[in-house]
Amino acid sequence: MRESEIIELFLKHLKNQGDLPLGDDAGALRIGDEWLVATNDMLVRKTDVPDIMTPEQVGFKSVTMNVSDVAAMGARPLGFLFSLGVPRDVGEEYLEGIAKGIREALEFYSLPVLSADTNEADDLIIDGIALGMTKKLLTRSGAKPGDLVCVTGDLGRALAGYLVWRHGLEVPGDVRESLYEKFLSPKARVMEGVLLSGVANAAIDVSDGLSKELGLIAKMSGVGIEVRSASLPIRKEVFEVARLVGMDPVDIALASGEEFELVFTIPPGEIKGLSFDFTVIGRVTEGSGLYLDGRPMEPKGWEHLI
Amino acid sequence: MRESEIIELFLKHLKNQGDLPLGDDAGALRIGDEWLVATNDMLVRKTDVPDIMTPEQVGFKSVTMNVSDVAAMGARPLGFLFSLGVPRDVGEEYLEGIAKGIREALEFYSLPVLSADTNEADDLIIDGIALGMTKKLLTRSGAKPGDLVCVTGDLGRALAGYLVWRHGLEVPGDVRESLYEKFLSPKARVMEGVLLSGVANAAIDVSDGLSKELGLIAKMSGVGIEVRSASLPIRKEVFEVARLVGMDPVDIALASGEEFELVFTIPPGEIKGLSFDFTVIGRVTEGSGLYLDGRPMEPKGWEHLI
Repeated sequence: MRESEIIELFLKHLKNQGDLPLGDDAGALRIGDEWLVATNDMLVRKTDVPDIMTPEQVGFKSVTMNVSDVAAMGARPLGFLFSLGVPRDVGEEYLEGIAKGIREALEFYSLPVLSADTNEADDLIIDGIALGMTKKLLTRSGAKPGDLVCVTGDLGRALAGYLVWRHGLEVPGDVRESLYEKFLSPKARVMEGVLLSGVANAAIDVSDGLSKELGLIAKMSGVGIEVRSASLPIRKEVFEVARLVGMDPVDIALASGEEFELVFTIPPGEIKGLSFDFTVIGRVTEGSGLYLDGRPMEPKGWEHLI
Repeated sequence: MRESEIIELFLKHLKNQGDLPLGDDAGALRIGDEWLVATNDMLVRKTDVPDIMTPEQVGFKSVTMNVSDVAAMGARPLGFLFSLGVPRDVGEEYLEGIAKGIREALEFYSLPVLSADTNEADDLIIDGIALGMTKKLLTRSGAKPGDLVCVTGDLGRALAGYLVWRHGLEVPGDVRESLYEKFLSPKARVMEGVLLSGVANAAIDVSDGLSKELGLIAKMSGVGIEVRSASLPIRKEVFEVARLVGMDPVDIALASGEEFELVFTIPPGEIKGLSFDFTVIGRVTEGSGLYLDGRPMEPKGWEHLI
């Protein structure tokens, strides 16, 4: 069974989904006049971890991927939990590297660890869980026609870094460093998520690629989305890799996953008040579907490209 | 590395442990004038699941083991999250059984599912997470000399059931049924946990065996604990298995894990107000250590017995 089929199978049985239906970046429960946000994301070494990733980077990323989902809900992260699956042949040094990486991430995001569990398993697994609170939830379903579509940071370096590693591409040291920073050590946009709560109409983090995330916002909000390719924040390092592999840098930016940038839609009148860097890449329209430079765009992830 | 060594390695690095240090049944964070309680527990099929357990029972247990930790903190469970690791060779029928078991448990405990994640893995893994809230935390460290030591339900059937299965013991049908009910379909003491909040001084759930749990309360509270073996609530089915395998039924009751009964210590004046069934099995004393019928008792789990 594919992951999507497994998810469908479980959703068929699990109808009681709290105060917010499943399908957003995180689950949520009303606690008094606030929302408690909770999310979990399992990292499996064999399938999710490239061999050049240090254990410190693995540990850090297990925190980032969960904190990013909390941030995408407009919530302030409050704590982290994790369960480890540990094969017998994993050495103490590797495990200590993971512990250091988790510690560095918790310090970076100013988070306490609330609970931890460890078990013997055949794979090295880190199941991370993050909790957060917010007065106002930011969901995927609130985009309104007329909203501007914006994104934090830049897009494409994670996938370009993957391509450099996977195909052993020869690139200058500073290019490799910039790409690997995003590919191996991505950071969650915590401050931005908190500032967008109550201001933006919809948000999602870029886990599976921009075009897929935009597809989810469009579908769950019942709107269309138009994107201008010339507006996409793509660094020259991504253009360089695109040239080497004969791809369109725009396709790389649209497909690149685990960027952990936030995509959000916001009324034009609200963007002046935003106190962080972002790029306007398009707008929300009536209707449905995604359009790139006026032509229909399929939501595609990195697995379609490589 | 053993689990205890791995945990020690991680604790060395993770010093920021929220508003309650790690080491209790669950972690906790202050939210206004309440406590948010969060816990996670990973179930690995290969090591944790006997082959007679149905997928429905596996799913149900993944919820129970987490809900029980929330109950042991005196908290009302609020929601459940889970991550699945799914090997390629697990069939749809088995997965649907797990989904049904999780659904049954969530209905039994009146809980919503807040978030779910699935990944390919070599083991079948369910990492469950439960959240809860309470005005007053019940910890392992609050036991006071003079407290009575009490336990809900009865003890020993989980291990006795395991012995019947492991050694293929011949026992009457009703005995097997009673033992397997506890061995394969244990339930968490949710109502009892909520009622003990603010009344009991300390509590823990029986995950690793009564003597180990008492050892933790004694150590973390800085007290001694005396238990009378004649007071332990042991059903005749456990005596029957003990006779067959040549063990002392008291040893079985002290070592039996995954009972998910609550052990608590409470001032004698408070027990009249308790509106549920429980058994007084001993008392808390000054000093340190565990005593059974006046003799020192080592905290032993089921792995020491079989």
